[in-house]
Amino acid sequence: MPEYKAPLRDMQFVLHDVFKAEALWQGMPATEEVNRELADAILEESAKINEGLIAPLSQSGHEEGVHWNEGVVTTPKGYPEAFRQLAEGGWGGLSGAPEYGGQTMPKMLVLLFEEMLYSSNIAMGLYLTLTSGAALAIDSHASDELKQKYLPNMYSGKWTGAMCLTESHAGTDLGMIRTKAVPNANGSYDISGTKIFITGGDHDLTENVIHLVLAKLPDAPAGSKGISLFLVPKVKVNDDGSLGEANGVHCGSIEHKMGINASATCVMNFDNAEGYLVGEINRGLQGMFTMMNYERLSVGIQGLSAAQTAYQWSCEYARERLQSRAPTGPVNKDAAADPIIVHPDVRRMLLTQKALVEAGRAFAVYVGKQLDVSKFGDGEAKARAAGMVELLTPVAKAFLTDKGFEGTVLGQQVYGGHGYIREWGMEQLVRDVRIAQIYEGTNGIQAMDLMGRKVAANRAQNMQALLGEIRDFAQSADSVAGMEEFLTPLRDAVDNLESLTEYVLGEAASDANAIGAAANDYLHVVGFTLYMYMWAMMCRAVLSGDSQQGEAFATAKLQTARYFVQRLLPQTAALSQSIRSGSASLMDVAEDAFV
Amino acid sequence: MPEYKAPLRDMQFVLHDVFKAEALWQGMPATEEVNRELADAILEESAKINEGLIAPLSQSGHEEGVHWNEGVVTTPKGYPEAFRQLAEGGWGGLSGAPEYGGQTMPKMLVLLFEEMLYSSNIAMGLYLTLTSGAALAIDSHASDELKQKYLPNMYSGKWTGAMCLTESHAGTDLGMIRTKAVPNANGSYDISGTKIFITGGDHDLTENVIHLVLAKLPDAPAGSKGISLFLVPKVKVNDDGSLGEANGVHCGSIEHKMGINASATCVMNFDNAEGYLVGEINRGLQGMFTMMNYERLSVGIQGLSAAQTAYQWSCEYARERLQSRAPTGPVNKDAAADPIIVHPDVRRMLLTQKALVEAGRAFAVYVGKQLDVSKFGDGEAKARAAGMVELLTPVAKAFLTDKGFEGTVLGQQVYGGHGYIREWGMEQLVRDVRIAQIYEGTNGIQAMDLMGRKVAANRAQNMQALLGEIRDFAQSADSVAGMEEFLTPLRDAVDNLESLTEYVLGEAASDANAIGAAANDYLHVVGFTLYMYMWAMMCRAVLSGDSQQGEAFATAKLQTARYFVQRLLPQTAALSQSIRSGSASLMDVAEDAFV
Repeated sequence: MPEYKAPLRDMQFVLHDVFKAEALWQGMPATEEVNRELADAILEESAKINEGLIAPLSQSGHEEGVHWNEGVVTTPKGYPEAFRQLAEGGWGGLSGAPEYGGQTMPKMLVLLFEEMLYSSNIAMGLYLTLTSGAALAIDSHASDELKQKYLPNMYSGKWTGAMCLTESHAGTDLGMIRTKAVPNANGSYDISGTKIFITGGDHDLTENVIHLVLAKLPDAPAGSKGISLFLVPKVKVNDDGSLGEANGVHCGSIEHKMGINASATCVMNFDNAEGYLVGEINRGLQGMFTMMNYERLSVGIQGLSAAQTAYQWSCEYARERLQSRAPTGPVNKDAAADPIIVHPDVRRMLLTQKALVEAGRAFAVYVGKQLDVSKFGDGEAKARAAGMVELLTPVAKAFLTDKGFEGTVLGQQVYGGHGYIREWGMEQLVRDVRIAQIYEGTNGIQAMDLMGRKVAANRAQNMQALLGEIRDFAQSADSVAGMEEFLTPLRDAVDNLESLTEYVLGEAASDANAIGAAANDYLHVVGFTLYMYMWAMMCRAVLSGDSQQGEAFATAKLQTARYFVQRLLPQTAALSQSIRSGSASLMDVAEDAFV
Repeated sequence: MPEYKAPLRDMQFVLHDVFKAEALWQGMPATEEVNRELADAILEESAKINEGLIAPLSQSGHEEGVHWNEGVVTTPKGYPEAFRQLAEGGWGGLSGAPEYGGQTMPKMLVLLFEEMLYSSNIAMGLYLTLTSGAALAIDSHASDELKQKYLPNMYSGKWTGAMCLTESHAGTDLGMIRTKAVPNANGSYDISGTKIFITGGDHDLTENVIHLVLAKLPDAPAGSKGISLFLVPKVKVNDDGSLGEANGVHCGSIEHKMGINASATCVMNFDNAEGYLVGEINRGLQGMFTMMNYERLSVGIQGLSAAQTAYQWSCEYARERLQSRAPTGPVNKDAAADPIIVHPDVRRMLLTQKALVEAGRAFAVYVGKQLDVSKFGDGEAKARAAGMVELLTPVAKAFLTDKGFEGTVLGQQVYGGHGYIREWGMEQLVRDVRIAQIYEGTNGIQAMDLMGRKVAANRAQNMQALLGEIRDFAQSADSVAGMEEFLTPLRDAVDNLESLTEYVLGEAASDANAIGAAANDYLHVVGFTLYMYMWAMMCRAVLSGDSQQGEAFATAKLQTARYFVQRLLPQTAALSQSIRSGSASLMDVAEDAFV
C-alpha cells in the first residue's frame, strides 16, 4: 500500500488564496488570534501525525478488524496507542469551547485536519470526530454542571463520545424509537432500550465512553415530538471527576461490515442505565440537530478524503505501471512499454478524480466558512451564513460522498486487477467510503431535506440568496482577463438552476410527489453548479494573481477547471432533463410491478 | 440474506416474445431440435438447481473464502459437493460440441442459465464457465487427439479449465509475457513461468485442472506476434484417459480480494510443466480470441446477474421496511409507518435498476443471438452476425458490468444501513460484481477496442450496419399503435450516435488521441442507444400483442420503458457533449500536474 501524503499546497491555496481566511478570522473576535502562520503550522503538524501515525494503521486495521468477546470490544493492534497520541496532541479539542479546554479553531481550518485524518484512516478518524460531535451537542445544550464534568475529558481525548439514535425498526424515522427514560427522584433518568449501528459505542481506546441517547419519557407525545436527549456514561463519574461504578451500558455485539472494519459499530443495550437530561424534555431532536450540520459536513469530508487518497495513489500507479504504448508513439523508448498515464482514457479517470476532489475541497472549506460566520460572526452576515449552512449542509453530505465514492471507484479502476486485491489498498478505500453515502441520513434523505425543507419550505429564499451571491461574484470577476471561459458556463448553470427550482416549486403546488421525484437529481445539479462556482473562484484566484503557488500549479488549476467545464458539467443537462419529466414515470408504476 | 428467485417470466418474454427464438433455432440445422418446450424445461431446471443448490452457498462462501495451505487450495464448505451436482446435471456441457459429449445448445439459451448461475453465486459460477471457455478454445484450435483426451471430461465437469494469460508485469499488454515454452523431442513442450490472477487455477472441486497457458518459444518474435498457446494439465493424463503423474504446475499462493472470495484466484507456477501446443506456433492470441467473445459476454452477464439479484432483494426490502409516511399521506394506516416503496426517491432507485436489468437481459440475448447465427447460420446472415459480434462484444462486457455495478450500488442504497452489514447480503453483491468491470480486459480497454478496432478501423462499417438495422426496425414498428413515444427517442439516439461517430472519425484523422479520448463516453452512448433499441423491441412485442405474459406485465414493461426514456436516456446528451470537447482537455495537462 502506498503512503498517504497530505495535499498541503492545495489546502493552503484554498484557505489563503481563494477564501482569504486570515482576513475573515481577524474580523471576528472569537477567532482574531488565528493567523496564517498559526493555520499553516497546524496544517503541517496535522500532516505529520496523520501521515506518520494514523495512515500506517489503516490497512492493518482493515485486515484485523474489531473484536468482540463476551461484551468486551477490542480495537486492532496499535489503535489504543495511536489514539492516545492523537489525544495528547490536542487534536480532539481543536474546535472545542475555551472554557473547558477547547481551542476554538475555525471550522474552515479544522475540517482540513479532518480531511487528512479521514484520508489516512476513516475508521480511526471516527472515534475522534464523533467525540467532537457529541461534545458540541453537550456544549450547546447541557447544563453547566454536565459540561464541567464531561467536556474537558472529551476535548482531551481521555474519553470518547458516541451518538445513540438508531434502533432496529427506526432509522430515518426516529419518531418510532422505543428506548425509555424513566425519571428518578434525584433528577437523573433510568434509560432502557437497544440501539444499533452505534459507531464507537464501545472500545478499548479510552476508559470511558459518553453516550448521547435519544429516548422517550413514559408520558411523551407520540412521534418525533416526544424525543428527549440524555447523556449516559459507560462508567459513572463521581463528583470529583474520578470514575465510579459501571453503568448499565453494554455492547451486545458488533456488526460485520463492508468496510471501516477498525471502527466498532455496536449494538448497545441500555439496561436501567443512569442518564442525565441534555436540553429540554421532548426537544431531543433539536439537540441533535445542533451538531448535525457539523457532523454532516464531516461525513461529506470522508467522501472527499477517500477520493483524495485514491486520486493520489492512482496517479502514482499510472506513472509507474508500464503497459503498451502511447497512441502517438513510444514515449519511454528505452523500456518495453510506456507508463499508462500516456493514455487519454487513464487521464480521463485521473482528471475526473482531480476535478472533483479539488472542487470538493474548496466547497468543504466554503461550507466551513459559512459555519464559522454563523457561529462567530454577527448581524446580517451571521444570519445570512446560517441560512447558507442550512441550504448547503445536505449538499455537502450527499454530493461530497457520492462524488467521493465515484472517485475511489475510478482510482481503483486505474489499478486494473491490482485494484481488486486487498494488499494494494484501493479496494479498502471503496469499501470504507461507501458508508458515507448511507449513514448520518442516507443521501436520498439529504436530497429530500434539500429540496423539501431547505428549498421548497421557504420558497427558495436561501437558494435565491446563493444564486444572487454567485451572480455577484461573476460580475465582480468579469474584469479579470481570461475569466470568460469559466464565467459563461457558471452563469448558464445558475440560470438553469433557477429555472429548475421554479419548475419543481410549480409542480409541487399540485403534486405531493414532485419534491421527492426531483430531489436526487436536483441535489446533483446544485452540486455541479456549486463545483462550477468553486472552479470559477479558484480560477479567479489564479488569474488575478492571488495565488502564491507558482506557474505550474496555476496552469494545472486552469486546465482542470477546463476539464470540469467540458467533461463533467454537461451532466447537469441530463439531470435537468430528468427532473423536468416530473413524477409520473416514478409513481404510475404499480407496487406489484416491482419484481 | 433473502433467497434468489430466477426471473423466468422475463427470460421467457425476451426469448420467445421479443426474439422469437424457436423460429430462429429451427431455421439452423445445428439447433433445429431445440424448441420452446425444451428451452423452457432447461430454464426451469436451471432455476431449480441455482435457487436451491448454488445460491444458498453464496454467503457462506463469501465469509469463509478459499484456503491455501502449503500449495493445496481448498474451497469453502459445500462447494465440492455442489460442483459435483452441477456437473452431474450436465450444466458444464450445455454449449459443448456433440462429438465429445456436449449438447450444442444455443448461446441465447445458455446465457440465461449463466445469468441464473451468476445471480446465485458468481464465485461458484466461474469454476464452471471458465471450464466452458477453455473447452471452447480447445475445440476450436486443438488437435483431434487433444480434443478427444480432454473435452469429454471438461464438458462433464470431471475436470475444470483455467486460462493463464496475465503475468505480474503483463496484463493488458500480453506482448510482454515471459513464460517460456521449450520444445521436447516427443512434440510436447516444457513450460516455465509464473502467471497471476488465475481464476480457478487450483482447487479441490475436481481431480484435474486443464490450463491454457500463453507462453513464448525461445526463438519467438518479440511482442504479441510471438505468443503461443499450450494445454497444460495439473495432472498428466495417460493415453487411456486415466490420471498419470503430477505435472510441474503449482499454486504458489492465492489472492485476498475485495470479493468473489469463494473463487480461487491463484498465482500459478509452471516449472518445466509438460504442455501441448494448441493451434499454431506464435498464433496463441488468436486461439484466445476465439473464446474471448463468449467470455466477454459471460463477464457482462455477471454484471446483469448481480444487478438482477440486487434489484429483486431491494424490491422486497422496500416493500417490507416501514419508515415514515408517503408524501401523499399515510398508506398503511394501521401501522406506525408506510413501506418505503411509497417514496419517489426509493422508486427512482428501484426503477433505475429495473430499467437497466431488463434492457440488459434483452441486450445479452440479442448478442447471444448474433453469436448463434455467426456460429450456426450461413451465408450473408452468418457474416453479418459475425460483424455484429465483433462490434457488440466490448459493449456487452463493459456496459453490462458498468450498469451492473451501478445497479448493485443502488440496491444496497435502498437497504440504508443494513446494506452495509454483511449478513444482509447486499454488500457482497457490490463487492463481487466490481471485478467484472476489471477482468477479461478492463472496461477502458473494451472502450478502446470498440472505438478503435471495431469502429474506426473499418470506417464504422459494422456500426453503420447496426444503425441501419435499428432504423429498419423503427420503420417496421411505425405502424404499431402506441410505438411513437418509443420510436422518436430511438431515432434521435441513432441520429446522435451516427453524428458522434462521424465526429470522432473526423478528429481521429489528425489526432492520435481522439479515439482514446472519446472511447469511454462513446461506449456508453452506444450502450444507451442499444438499450433504447431493446426497450423499443420489448414495447413492440407488448403493443403488437406478441407477449403472452398478461396485462400487468405488459403495463409494467411500457412504464419501465417510459422511465428509461425520460430519466436515463438523457445521459447520452451529457456524454455526447463530453465527446465533442475533443482530447485537448485530457492531453494538455502536464504529467507532473497529476498530484
